[in-house]
Amino acid sequence: MDIKNEVERQFNILKRGCEEIINEAELKLRLEKSLKENKPLKIKLGIDPTGTDLHIGHAVPLRKLKQFQELGHTVQFLIGTFTARIGDPTGKSETRKMLTPEDIQKNIATYLEQVFLILDSEKTEILYNADWLEKLSLQDFLGLLSQFTVAQMISREDFAKRLAENKPVSLVEFMYPILQGYDSVAMKCDIELGATEQKFNILKGRDLQKNFGMDPQICMLLPILEGLDGVEKMSKSLNNYISITDTPNDMFGKIMSISDDLMFRYYEIITDIPLEEIAQLKADMENGTLHPMEIKKRLGSEVVAIYHNKEEGLKAREWFENVFSKKNLDVELPEVELEYTETGVIDILVKHLNLLSSTSEARRLIQQGGLKINDEPVKDINHMVTPEAGMIIRAGKKKIVKVK
Amino acid sequence: MDIKNEVERQFNILKRGCEEIINEAELKLRLEKSLKENKPLKIKLGIDPTGTDLHIGHAVPLRKLKQFQELGHTVQFLIGTFTARIGDPTGKSETRKMLTPEDIQKNIATYLEQVFLILDSEKTEILYNADWLEKLSLQDFLGLLSQFTVAQMISREDFAKRLAENKPVSLVEFMYPILQGYDSVAMKCDIELGATEQKFNILKGRDLQKNFGMDPQICMLLPILEGLDGVEKMSKSLNNYISITDTPNDMFGKIMSISDDLMFRYYEIITDIPLEEIAQLKADMENGTLHPMEIKKRLGSEVVAIYHNKEEGLKAREWFENVFSKKNLDVELPEVELEYTETGVIDILVKHLNLLSSTSEARRLIQQGGLKINDEPVKDINHMVTPEAGMIIRAGKKKIVKVK
Repeated sequence: MDIKNEVERQFNILKRGCEEIINEAELKLRLEKSLKENKPLKIKLGIDPTGTDLHIGHAVPLRKLKQFQELGHTVQFLIGTFTARIGDPTGKSETRKMLTPEDIQKNIATYLEQVFLILDSEKTEILYNADWLEKLSLQDFLGLLSQFTVAQMISREDFAKRLAENKPVSLVEFMYPILQGYDSVAMKCDIELGATEQKFNILKGRDLQKNFGMDPQICMLLPILEGLDGVEKMSKSLNNYISITDTPNDMFGKIMSISDDLMFRYYEIITDIPLEEIAQLKADMENGTLHPMEIKKRLGSEVVAIYHNKEEGLKAREWFENVFSKKNLDVELPEVELEYTETGVIDILVKHLNLLSSTSEARRLIQQGGLKINDEPVKDINHMVTPEAGMIIRAGKKKIVKVK
Repeated sequence: MDIKNEVERQFNILKRGCEEIINEAELKLRLEKSLKENKPLKIKLGIDPTGTDLHIGHAVPLRKLKQFQELGHTVQFLIGTFTARIGDPTGKSETRKMLTPEDIQKNIATYLEQVFLILDSEKTEILYNADWLEKLSLQDFLGLLSQFTVAQMISREDFAKRLAENKPVSLVEFMYPILQGYDSVAMKCDIELGATEQKFNILKGRDLQKNFGMDPQICMLLPILEGLDGVEKMSKSLNNYISITDTPNDMFGKIMSISDDLMFRYYEIITDIPLEEIAQLKADMENGTLHPMEIKKRLGSEVVAIYHNKEEGLKAREWFENVFSKKNLDVELPEVELEYTETGVIDILVKHLNLLSSTSEARRLIQQGGLKINDEPVKDINHMVTPEAGMIIRAGKKKIVKVK
């Protein structure tokens, strides 16, 4: 094997989709060393077990880890069992609550179940930071603190912002970057992955490793994925997300609802389609050779293929085309349960089916003619309807359900 | 015993010389409870074993503790064996170095030896905070930190100042007020004494005790004593101090060198002479009944009486009058060793005898006629002299030595 070529090959695979690598030269050297000594690199990704449903935004670093696994490196998946008791404010505007041990246990199980839909469980090391942080004495901890100044901590963007706004920053939150950094010392990892907002914390780990006489870890920052709205960060609470366990039809339908701009960003960040191919798709769209809808459908099938398989990706496309393009409702539709009693349409949309998130949104949709019951537009916001088996309810272009 | 009267009596004794009590009403209630339940109060004074020669500025809180002892309360003298490893920046403009265990042991011995020149060793509890802080787990410690915000810490004056000046504040220094506060929790103390600069830290102890469901300690703040120059804080490094182990003649002489203004402040802070009597002395000076020199001599005798005894106080006055007023050098003078070889007078004053702290000061004194050798003025700064037994060297009005 030509080591130099192999370094370049691995580097190019790994670099794809990274927002920043600190730094690239070190990464190449580390890859080279790994190949020469035939010793896999240790790649850290830390998470706090906070009871998350993984969405394709969370999957971005997980899929990067998967690449490392496929290249033969060792993934160290770190679960912050100790730090979870503290609460990290990174990217949050408020102090988080500490979790109970029971919450933590339950969350870990749910989390790992989902993680192993992406990572190879056989090849993944699971580590828990309580294993070393519980043993750290107060004096040793103070020794770590003495290596950093208050000004350095305050320089972290979210801390600075909250302090400037006179919002409370608990002293304990100040400790988080140090604890996270010490994890890297204990794990002797070569690379730490994280979202861009993790830059400060990951660099603290670099500093601490240096002070402990180790080669400092390489910091690999991945973008934070925008939600379906194209504006906010993807999150469950904003209901702008694609869960990695969504059904093929749901995933496909959600992809079809995004803007053309966001579509290309998704292509780049959440798929492995080569960048040249993506550029070509964009060019074809711009010169009119390809319709945006077609490019979006390909993305939809691609995403379904990642989390389910290729066949499901194609079937989801077919289903979507049947229902939304050919208006052929003679296909399998998501079934919902509704009581067969007369109910206001707004209540059905918002309260019972949760198809829309607010009454005002429902009112707007109805007035604009977006609600159809059995293909009949309903424009009266006070309309009452008695559900029955087989009734098809359609809210806007992409949401359609059939009453059981 | 009439409890109400006794509370008033104790309160008035204790209040004397305090800069601030937080708060007075609580102190009275606590004294009352102590008398009713016949349970002495626990009074905390914490020090870091940093190898200090105690001067009469340090003695201010120690003498307050002594009053508590005489009133039957329990003095808890806390030695910061754990915190000494950290270094507290309070009142310092720079981060302090951590001490080694050997330094700490040596310093404790020297410190206590001096402390028991003031406190009754039989009635003093000596505590070491390593006893509880070493056992504090990281998680418990983080639990303490979660009770405070970064903004609260930054509000401490010296931290704010250093941050504003872009001087480093180590993260570990931020922990000091919390550790000191936790000491009060562990000690269950009723009152914590400290110099005014300790207010922030002592109040943190109050907060923590409250959070632990205790009656919060009363914060008793004592003034920081000005040195002999009347401007800077008394300190060894500024050479403006009276050590509590100075000889009677040295103590007396140093008191005689202070200004009239400072003299009344010393009367108030470092003696127990009733405030009315001090007011009378001031009035007598102002209306010309008493010469300031006479009032200063009384202060000199009083201070010597405190650290030695009454007789020594009177003897020191007599000696001073002989040497400096009656110019009678036929008395016992402090003896110094000097080599009998020809030496420049500036070197003798500064390098060999340490009577003056700098060459420029020595030059000024000589040019102004302040140097006398065997009662002969020496005005040439380059004058060479060969010391011999019995030679009397006088630098300024208050410094006189005899060569051995």
